[in-house]
Amino acid sequence: MVCGMNDKTQVVWHEHSVDRSAREQLNGHRGCVVWFTGLSGSGKSTIANVVDQRLAQLGKHSFLLDGDNVRHGLNASVDMLGDHGAAYAERFGLGFSAEDRTENIRRIGCVAELFSAAGVITLSAFVSPFRNDRDTVRQRVEATGGAGSFVEVFVDTPLDVCESRDPKGLYQQARAGKIKNFTGISDPYEPPEHPEVHLAAGDATPDALADQVLQYLLQVTALPSS
Amino acid sequence: MVCGMNDKTQVVWHEHSVDRSAREQLNGHRGCVVWFTGLSGSGKSTIANVVDQRLAQLGKHSFLLDGDNVRHGLNASVDMLGDHGAAYAERFGLGFSAEDRTENIRRIGCVAELFSAAGVITLSAFVSPFRNDRDTVRQRVEATGGAGSFVEVFVDTPLDVCESRDPKGLYQQARAGKIKNFTGISDPYEPPEHPEVHLAAGDATPDALADQVLQYLLQVTALPSS
Repeated sequence: MVCGMNDKTQVVWHEHSVDRSAREQLNGHRGCVVWFTGLSGSGKSTIANVVDQRLAQLGKHSFLLDGDNVRHGLNASVDMLGDHGAAYAERFGLGFSAEDRTENIRRIGCVAELFSAAGVITLSAFVSPFRNDRDTVRQRVEATGGAGSFVEVFVDTPLDVCESRDPKGLYQQARAGKIKNFTGISDPYEPPEHPEVHLAAGDATPDALADQVLQYLLQVTALPSS
Repeated sequence: MVCGMNDKTQVVWHEHSVDRSAREQLNGHRGCVVWFTGLSGSGKSTIANVVDQRLAQLGKHSFLLDGDNVRHGLNASVDMLGDHGAAYAERFGLGFSAEDRTENIRRIGCVAELFSAAGVITLSAFVSPFRNDRDTVRQRVEATGGAGSFVEVFVDTPLDVCESRDPKGLYQQARAGKIKNFTGISDPYEPPEHPEVHLAAGDATPDALADQVLQYLLQVTALPSS
């Protein structure tokens, strides 16, 4: 920071920000966004958690964005924002309409981009059913991080397998018409056309699937040797 | 991660997430949110940038949230969201009304909390004029990070000094009535009552002010010696 000061009212402040490459050097690897997409029950969050653990064991700086830490905060529902008044909550609270899903993914994508700019290997695990929403995130991330900074991981588990697992009983409720806008049942899922990692996730263990992701990440996040 | 698998449709997945303390151990310090608040032109962003640089030089893992990286992404304006259609942009785009300011700070607070949970010393530099909005962020951050995880830094620069600096010509426009809802002129600024760090910022250099913040942070982010 260079600061020329004549008197207290005439300060010429030349801001020198810490740049991304300095943060990446400190972390010892590049930052990126690892975007897990797939149906409810496909195993996104489970696999992402295993990847997160492996990265931590290897001394890599990672973080996981998922429903647990986003749906109660940044992307809270109308109900959760009720303290701010009904009009505020209706406007900013998110449900599962197409518009709300788009805003959900837009906000998460922006946060993931910030984490990647901090040099963090940023894992996100959301259904993110719309191709256009995911591609918009990709463009945002690659605009600041360059090629390789957005890694789309398609957790490709057949619908019948997801439905038979039904860990939260959501498919059962969707089939009974108790949940509207449920991806795979009453709402579309648009699979990635060219994902960086395509996991045939119906009949493999989370550990084996996480390995596939990890091997890819270790290559793409390696800093150029100086 | 413990995974018991009987067949592909009956997977019992016990998720073991990486916890905050593991991320903090890896980084070598605690995560926290350092919330700079003060009038436009008070020096928040400049001081925060110096702190960010000093932390990087010391090998600490930090990140800065400010208008530059938030207002073009997460908290984009109505105009910037126009590609999503007028109704979407009107609903989610943020301006400077009281409601919009509250949502602006709410989203930033949620993101800052996530960064702090990742073990990052998270600097944020926004006017954030309303006490209640800042206190809500404090509660959120301390709920997951405990005491000491929210550090409010009041950049206390007299209005006349800010106005004479007027780095972006905003005060001049506000006085001419060309900008409505301008904090300090046509909108209130509610100063913190018990900030962790109170900077008398009207007549000191950014370097000296950053030093005050840094000394506080080095204490509060130190990991307990094992």
